[in-house]
Formats: sequence, structure tokens, C-alpha cells
Amino acid sequence: MSRLSLSDTDKQARDWFAETTTSLGCTVHTDAMGNQFAIRPGLDNDQPPTYAGSHLDTQPTGGRYDGILGVTAAVEMLKTLNDNWIETSYPVGVVNWTNEEGARFPMSMVSSGVWAESVPLEKAHNLKSVIPANDTATMKSELERIGYLGSVPASYKSTPMAAHFELHIEQGPILEAENRRIGVVQGVQAYKWFTVTVKGRDAHTGATSFRHRADALLTASKMILASHKIASRHKALASTGILTLKPGSTNTVPGFVQFSLDIRSPLDETVEAVEKDCKTAFSAIAAGENAEGVNDDCHPSDRSCDVEWRTDFVNPATHFQKDCISCVQQAGSDLCGGGEVSGRDIGAWGKLMTSGAGHDSVYSNKHCPTSMIFVPCRDGVSHNPAEYSTPEQCGDGANVLMGALLRYDKL
Amino acid sequence: MSRLSLSDTDKQARDWFAETTTSLGCTVHTDAMGNQFAIRPGLDNDQPPTYAGSHLDTQPTGGRYDGILGVTAAVEMLKTLNDNWIETSYPVGVVNWTNEEGARFPMSMVSSGVWAESVPLEKAHNLKSVIPANDTATMKSELERIGYLGSVPASYKSTPMAAHFELHIEQGPILEAENRRIGVVQGVQAYKWFTVTVKGRDAHTGATSFRHRADALLTASKMILASHKIASRHKALASTGILTLKPGSTNTVPGFVQFSLDIRSPLDETVEAVEKDCKTAFSAIAAGENAEGVNDDCHPSDRSCDVEWRTDFVNPATHFQKDCISCVQQAGSDLCGGGEVSGRDIGAWGKLMTSGAGHDSVYSNKHCPTSMIFVPCRDGVSHNPAEYSTPEQCGDGANVLMGALLRYDKL
Ligand SMILES: NC(=O)NCCC(=O)O
Ligand SMILES: NC(=O)NCCC(=O)O
Repeated sequence: MSRLSLSDTDKQARDWFAETTTSLGCTVHTDAMGNQFAIRPGLDNDQPPTYAGSHLDTQPTGGRYDGILGVTAAVEMLKTLNDNWIETSYPVGVVNWTNEEGARFPMSMVSSGVWAESVPLEKAHNLKSVIPANDTATMKSELERIGYLGSVPASYKSTPMAAHFELHIEQGPILEAENRRIGVVQGVQAYKWFTVTVKGRDAHTGATSFRHRADALLTASKMILASHKIASRHKALASTGILTLKPGSTNTVPGFVQFSLDIRSPLDETVEAVEKDCKTAFSAIAAGENAEGVNDDCHPSDRSCDVEWRTDFVNPATHFQKDCISCVQQAGSDLCGGGEVSGRDIGAWGKLMTSGAGHDSVYSNKHCPTSMIFVPCRDGVSHNPAEYSTPEQCGDGANVLMGALLRYDKL
Repeated sequence: MSRLSLSDTDKQARDWFAETTTSLGCTVHTDAMGNQFAIRPGLDNDQPPTYAGSHLDTQPTGGRYDGILGVTAAVEMLKTLNDNWIETSYPVGVVNWTNEEGARFPMSMVSSGVWAESVPLEKAHNLKSVIPANDTATMKSELERIGYLGSVPASYKSTPMAAHFELHIEQGPILEAENRRIGVVQGVQAYKWFTVTVKGRDAHTGATSFRHRADALLTASKMILASHKIASRHKALASTGILTLKPGSTNTVPGFVQFSLDIRSPLDETVEAVEKDCKTAFSAIAAGENAEGVNDDCHPSDRSCDVEWRTDFVNPATHFQKDCISCVQQAGSDLCGGGEVSGRDIGAWGKLMTSGAGHDSVYSNKHCPTSMIFVPCRDGVSHNPAEYSTPEQCGDGANVLMGALLRYDKL
């Protein structure tokens, strides 16, 4: 699946979402970030709705479940409520958040971030598309182009939520490996995104000795390796997904390299420690000194590179709200036959877990009670066209999503 | 200077070359590779001309001397011969070779290669432009587009040469460091170009443990570092100037990386040895085994990457012809006041040297006596906008070029 945020295909998915939820009896509104909110009335409509939702955008070569399962299961919930003539105490909502992936506009969960008033609207609107390369579009220009720049302010004040539940594939291998049906998500690990720029000197590959080089790509390669070793030592993650260089010719040593760095850990202090160690190591590597062993047996150089860091995104560790977590836990137990459950006492059907990936629930959690439901995905593969969950696994997730929502509505 | 081969600006330079040399009394013809040959008649025109030449194309962000000095000094020679009413025994030629850099169409010296019948015409014509990215042009389509697909076959048989002399900036730091005015070039080091493809698996950066990854970029980073260590051990050079990856998103571990590898040494057997050691090391690295120490302290993974090699270009070590070398040596001595010189006995003004960079003289040398003249360039910098040689250094080179040519004409 390739449905980059605010592309023509994303517009099609949005049109489908609006038409389908309207035909199911919802009123639909769109905010200034293109977030779509469909609301099904309850008995008492003076209180804000309890929401289910996720996102419909994907990675450039993504899967068919990441985000999409959460929205389609929520729409399925609306149908099921209608088919069974169920009236909820309060309204129920379904939300499609814009550009959750951060793939096209490089800030993940940016639109729930604006809704939470954690990300300034203007900053979000001005984000530049990074896919395809050299695209000059911004979030705002693309929202306008596809007709989804809504008139409602993007804020929890204009679109309040009683709670937010999000069904998602795990995107990791644990549930499958342990043969569990449902992940009860207690929180999301911390992460930080950086852009690292290495500046050396363009030089001829044949006529420039190693001693005379300031090779930005060799230096960046050492940094990527060092970040991996540092993260490994801290039991954290560090990953580079984007790397560009200049000038880009077989016989020119690159004088300029820029790469992304994504550092994650369940603990905020561990992310900070990895960042700190990487900063120290990268400076040493740029200066041609040994760090993390990566310079062993390298040819010394008389020239050094410069390194610059830019922080693009900070997502502190998130801890979901306990009532919501317990609604998910009870709904899992209802489905899987585990009876009443409490605390960390959870049946073989499920697992209390921390999400490795960020989700819009991180931001909803700042202004309303939130939790998430994970279902297994094959081999833990995500952000990959091979991503897969069985119809039964998707069904489990949809059932627990509706169950948790109805329990919360009763609360 | 950015004058990529067969671009609109290259057409302008070609038009200038044809008009200027024609106005200086030459007949000009273009061959099927766009090589331009300007011939000034001598007393006996039954013999092939003695040529001076180089190239007018540049790197994407190149300098104003690399190649250009050799052509403009040769044109200056034509003016000087005219201004001084000099009649040569045999005709004198000036040649502008197409796409020497191999930057836009990724095979360096490709058009002198076709002239030498070392590179098949069809292969050269079908070379695809790699700059800008996603350009679909081929050498043939661009030759047609700018009107430089000549009717003369590209072959030493159709355009024979008595000898070929090429003036060039050194592109390295030696002449400057040793304070010498002229490099007498005896040959060119061997080099080979490869494209290495690493295939891993796209995965989520937050939800995929190091153990579950097949990270193509981390693997490629280790390979680049290993190639550097291996080359360093062999006193050779290994360089990566191009690297692309997919899918290219901050939160996706890249499943696909492709990079160029340029291996050089004065000895053919050393290039082979570096290639062999890199092949062994890259296979081990892709399989997750330790090689060249690059896996020390890395987190082990259950998944491996695949690696594939493609050989793009092979340039064995070149040894220039001794009469030509001695014409350059005598001309240097004439200019710098060293008197008669022979063998390795060369005055403080000059140095016998081997070129680190490839030049069209590599191919001319296959079918006619050839040598080259180097002049110092500031700080050894080339393939860089900062490339610089003083007017005096350029003048020295032009004087030795003409001197060597006239000496050869007498021979
Ligand atoms: N679930 C997901 O892929 N979210 C994108 C944000 C992140 O990189 O974790
Ligand atoms: N002189 C020069 O830059 N030639 C290009 C071929 C090479 O890479 O050596």
C-alpha cells in the first residue's frame, strides 16, 4: 500500500470515510489539519463522544493494516451498533488523523499533535513534503489542493473527546511469538528524531589520498555504526531511514551527507543518554578520533568533517489512563473467555505491553483518557508490503475495540 | 562549474569549440560519440595529425580547470602557431572528448573508449543518464537532441592520430607540496568501478528489535567502512560517491541500498586483491558475521541481508609511450631551464609521476603514442568548485603542451 498523506489516493480514502460514516448516520466535520471526525449521536449528546480511530495514510511502501485496521474496525463498529439497534449513553465518534506516519511530511502524529495543542498549527501547515524528492508542496498547500483544509480549528477545545481508543497491529513479533490474541497497551516508548548533517570536502576519488580526504560518507557510515553500538549498549534502538549525499558521482568523494536518526527507548532518560553518547561519538568521529571502535584500522586523515544536529521531533514516554486500559483488558477477557481481570493479572489470551511505535493516541492521551489494542501481525513485519494479520486477528481487534468503547460509555 | 556532458551548456561549449577552431583555420569534424576533432594542416598532410586535447564536460559541482585547461591550452596553441606563422611538418589536431568524467553517463572516458574500439558503440549510446535522478535520457538521445551525433564513425581508424598529448591539472597535492612546476606523466593507475546492491527488509524503526532486523543501510555502512580498511591495508584507494536507498522514511529501516565502489591502485594485481578482499568481507558482513572488525559490539540479528556486485568499468594500469614522455620532459626542461634531460634524471622543476585519475589519454595510448603534462592545483583539490591553478601554472602547462607537440612533430 502506498497512500502518502494528502496525495490523490489519500483524498479518495477520505471521501470514502466521509461518505460511509455519513450514510451510517454520523455527522462529519473536518478540522484545519484535515482530521476527520464522524459522530454518532448517543442518548445524552451534551457530553463529548467516546472516540475510536487511527489513520489512513501509509508509508511509501507500506502495508494494508498499519492505521487502516483501526479506522476500518471503527467504521465496522458503527455498522454493528446500527445493525443491533444499540443506543449508547453518550455519542460515539470515529476519527481519521492526518499524516500519522510522518513519512511524507516528516513529523509523525503531527495532526493529533496540533489537536492536542502540542504542535503549533503554523509549524504543521508549513511542513514540506519529503516524498517525492524535490516536491515543493507543504501540508497546507496539499490540504487545500485536495479540499480537506477544514474550517473547524484543529484543537481538543473545538473537538473534545471523552476518551480515545485505538486498535492497531502490533508492528512487532511478541504477540505472535507468545501466541497471544490481544495486546493491552499501557503506553508508548519515548522517541526523538534528528537530522544529522556531515560536511567534508568534495574531492577526486582517484587523485586524493586518504590522508587528504574529508570524506562525509565514510564519516556518516561510521556514525551510523556507532549509533547502533551505543543504542545496543543502552538496550535502546537507533535507526537511520533516510540518507542523502552530494554531489553524487562515482569518482567524487562526497563532501556533504545528511541522514535521519531515530532513537527510542521506553525510558526518557535512556533516549537522552543515547543522544548524549551519540553526540560525543559523532563529534569525535568527525574530528577523526576513535570512538566506539569505528576508527580502528582506518587510514588517518589530515582533514576533519563538521557535524551538525537538528532535533526534528520529541516524543516523551506516554502512559495511558488506567480506566481505559482496564476497559480494553475487560473487553479482551469478555471475548477470549478469561472472566474478570485486574492489574497485571491477565489471561493467556493477552499481554500488557508498551508500544514501540508512536500513535495518535500519544497526543489524545494528553487531553482525554486513552488506551490502545494490539493484534498480532505476521513475523512482526510492518512498514512493508508484506505486513499481514489474519481476518480472525483483525476480527478479535475489532471486537475488543467495540467492547472497550461500550464499557467506557457505561463508565 | 556545472557542465554535465551533453547538457545545454555542454552544447554551448561545443559550439564555441567548433567556431573558434574553424576561425583559426582548422577543419572540424564530429564523430558518432560527439567527439570533436579540429585539424590544422601541416606541410605534409598525408600523415595523421599530432593531437592535443582533453574534455570540456565537468562533474555536477566541478571546477574550471579539470579537462577544460587541456582543451583551452590546445586552442591557445593553435592561436600561437598562427600568430607566429609556424608551419608544422605534419598536421596538428585538437580534440574535445565527450563525457570524460563519467558523471552524467556513468562510464568515464567512454567516448575515447569507443574511439579506441575498447567500448562498443551501442553500449556507449545506450548509457543512461544518472544526473539528474530519474532522467530517462541516453547518450544517443542527448547527442541527437543537442545536434552532436556526428556522421563520422567513432574509431581510431576513421580519425587516426600520430600522437596524443594531454595537459591536465594534477588533481592531487604532490606537485604543490614539492614545489614543482611540471608533472611528466608516465602512466595512469588501474581502477575498477562497481555497483553494490544490499537487500534487507523494510521494517518499523520503533517496533522492530535489532535482532529482527535486516538493515540494509547499517550493513552498507559497515561495507563502506570495511572497503576503506581493506584498501588502506593494501595501500590502495576505495571510495563510495553514490548511495541510494529505499523506501527512505525516518521510521522505516531501509530494505534496499545501492552504492558505487571505486577501487584504485597503480598495480592491477592490487586492485584485484582489494576487490577480492571486499567481496569476502561484504559477504560476511551481509551474513552478519564479523569481518574487518566492523561487527564488534554490534547487536546480533537473526536475519541477514543479500549482497550483489555488478562491475561497471575496468581500467587496467596504463603505461605511456617513451618518446612522448621524453618530448614532455624536454619541453619542461626547455621552459624551466633544466637543459637536456633523460630517464629518471629530471630537474627540480618537474617530477615523473603516475596519474591517480583516469584520462582520455588512457584510450588514445592504445592506438597512438601518448603522454600527459600535469600542473599543480591548489591544495590538490579537484572535482570541487574550489579547484584552482594560477595563471602562471596554466601558462607553464600550455607552454609545455605546445613544446612537446612541436618536438613530436619534428620526431
Ligand atoms: N505506528 C506508526 O507507524 N507510527 C508512526 C510513528 C512512529 O514512527 O512510531
Ligand atoms: N580526470 C578525471 O577526473 N577523470 C575522470 C575519470 C576518473 O575517475 O579518474
